[in-house]
Amino acid sequence: MIKAKGYAALSKDTPVQAFTFERRSPGPSDVVIEIQYCGVCHSDLHQVKDEWGHSIFPMVPGHEIVGKVVDIGSHVKRFKKGDSAGVGCMVDSCGHCQSCESNLEQFCFNGMSGTYNSLEQDKKTPTQGGYSNFIVVTEKFCLNISPKLDLKSTAPLLCAGITTYSPLRHWNVTKGHRVAVVGLGGLGHMAVKFAASFGAHVAVITTSANKKEDALRLGAKDVIISKDPAEMKKHAGSFDFILDTVAADHDLNALLALLKVDGKMVLVGAPDKPAAVSAFALIGGRKTLAGSLIGGIKETQEMLDYCADHNITSDVEMIPMNEINTAYTRMVKGDVKYRFVIDMKTL
Amino acid sequence: MIKAKGYAALSKDTPVQAFTFERRSPGPSDVVIEIQYCGVCHSDLHQVKDEWGHSIFPMVPGHEIVGKVVDIGSHVKRFKKGDSAGVGCMVDSCGHCQSCESNLEQFCFNGMSGTYNSLEQDKKTPTQGGYSNFIVVTEKFCLNISPKLDLKSTAPLLCAGITTYSPLRHWNVTKGHRVAVVGLGGLGHMAVKFAASFGAHVAVITTSANKKEDALRLGAKDVIISKDPAEMKKHAGSFDFILDTVAADHDLNALLALLKVDGKMVLVGAPDKPAAVSAFALIGGRKTLAGSLIGGIKETQEMLDYCADHNITSDVEMIPMNEINTAYTRMVKGDVKYRFVIDMKTL
Repeated sequence: MIKAKGYAALSKDTPVQAFTFERRSPGPSDVVIEIQYCGVCHSDLHQVKDEWGHSIFPMVPGHEIVGKVVDIGSHVKRFKKGDSAGVGCMVDSCGHCQSCESNLEQFCFNGMSGTYNSLEQDKKTPTQGGYSNFIVVTEKFCLNISPKLDLKSTAPLLCAGITTYSPLRHWNVTKGHRVAVVGLGGLGHMAVKFAASFGAHVAVITTSANKKEDALRLGAKDVIISKDPAEMKKHAGSFDFILDTVAADHDLNALLALLKVDGKMVLVGAPDKPAAVSAFALIGGRKTLAGSLIGGIKETQEMLDYCADHNITSDVEMIPMNEINTAYTRMVKGDVKYRFVIDMKTL
Repeated sequence: MIKAKGYAALSKDTPVQAFTFERRSPGPSDVVIEIQYCGVCHSDLHQVKDEWGHSIFPMVPGHEIVGKVVDIGSHVKRFKKGDSAGVGCMVDSCGHCQSCESNLEQFCFNGMSGTYNSLEQDKKTPTQGGYSNFIVVTEKFCLNISPKLDLKSTAPLLCAGITTYSPLRHWNVTKGHRVAVVGLGGLGHMAVKFAASFGAHVAVITTSANKKEDALRLGAKDVIISKDPAEMKKHAGSFDFILDTVAADHDLNALLALLKVDGKMVLVGAPDKPAAVSAFALIGGRKTLAGSLIGGIKETQEMLDYCADHNITSDVEMIPMNEINTAYTRMVKGDVKYRFVIDMKTL
């Protein structure tokens, strides 16, 4: 074992604070990354506050990790020292179930190992995330990052990026489609960039009229204020696809009404409470409500390569490590454009 | 106008009773059908009791209509006198919107004309259904019925048949798929027959243990009692497709848990109240919840031809017209295997 330092939640009632812990010594298939930047995802806060239950403390959060390879095991082929590399929401999976064999490790039948607040495949060792000076990860779950990409603004691609890229690709969003993105936050702003880049006509649906200018700058052509019934009515039956990134309770039936016949709405945010869904809202137009969870490792690499080729990264605000608790407070208020990223030099 | 007789609800508080009314004189594109049999759909009862609102009285219910062509207009090509013909849930639509042009008249942008409790395309004349001695319908919405088909048990195909056939086809249910049908009633028993005929491995999910033998006879391989948590757990993550035919309130999340990764559940029954749907139930497995409404006219014809070729009809119990109110009472209790059909000779 080797010593690592980072920031951790020691319980759900304490602020995230400086912490030392142990990482495993790298095995033959492992890559050791010196973490340069780590994005701050809303799920970090859900988990440090134990809002989803079963949190494991002490917890070093962070699953939007980029940095430099500083060591590799003898079997590692895709990385060499000095390469830029990334780690997203997963660090391992069983590797042999139908999901793993279909490159959908996020749905591993035996349970994938989340990057933090989870267990390694031994089902005993807790995993620790990216609010830390380095990470040891098996090569298969380590992503190549093109030198073309700006590292700071690439970090959020590892979660916010793949979470929005994957459903847009899976449901074949393309040129000519009318797409609405619900919520303009960390996920939403990436969804707008991707959908616009795929050639879709993109609208942002938001409760905040003051996000209009930014939505247009990011690539949207329309902004619909969801609190305005007249605006919502005007867009009834007009979208092929809606990506809903909002994790707070909201009216799904009002959004389903905006879909065309055979339109599809996909949830990537997960409200705590079940949503009230009217069967009539689905039946009247053969509409689909679906969910999507991050993306597999192969698709995450494809997304990173796409971003490098198309000059797409996240809009970020850099913070030092010791401002993480303030960042959480601001994030809850929606006061971030659009993702906080921790500069690990400040650890 | 020409005189017709039938049975009608005069208000939501009166039993369905004998009634005389007028049908339009047939125009050049019309087919006149002497109705021989009319199926009794649960939605007949919902509408005569005004449970969905906006009911139009007096109302002659019935949209599972089969009979003999007794007259045709001068432009009619697909029918001649003496042919068997059918009418389902729709009698007209605008004909020029995107849905109509895509053979999805049920989603006509300008509103399709339902067979009863609806308005003709003039948006003024109420339509009247199949509890009646004849009907006048435009050729486009009139279905050919093969002489190979038994007419009595063909009537329910016009609603229960197409409502289940269409989603099974649209979502490409085929050989090797594991399919569950929720609810074994008028819709459910047709869904089992179709899915089994398409080569799927079919399970029935029901609250009634006493339906097991019948489910197996109809083509199911498994019967899952939804009230038994151990049985439900045993089948977790095992179905590619679930067709949910239940119109009463029930737990959709428990059913979504039975789907495989990328599995799809489609609602064809519509509970009055919105259902509580957990985003996690969809996100954890990229699952789909969708709805489907009857089917277009082209697909209804395809379904009838498929049934003629594969010897598929509904299991029916024949009733005379004057027992309709008793039939409604028994239908609410689920005391019918599996569809009441009115013999119009008894009118």
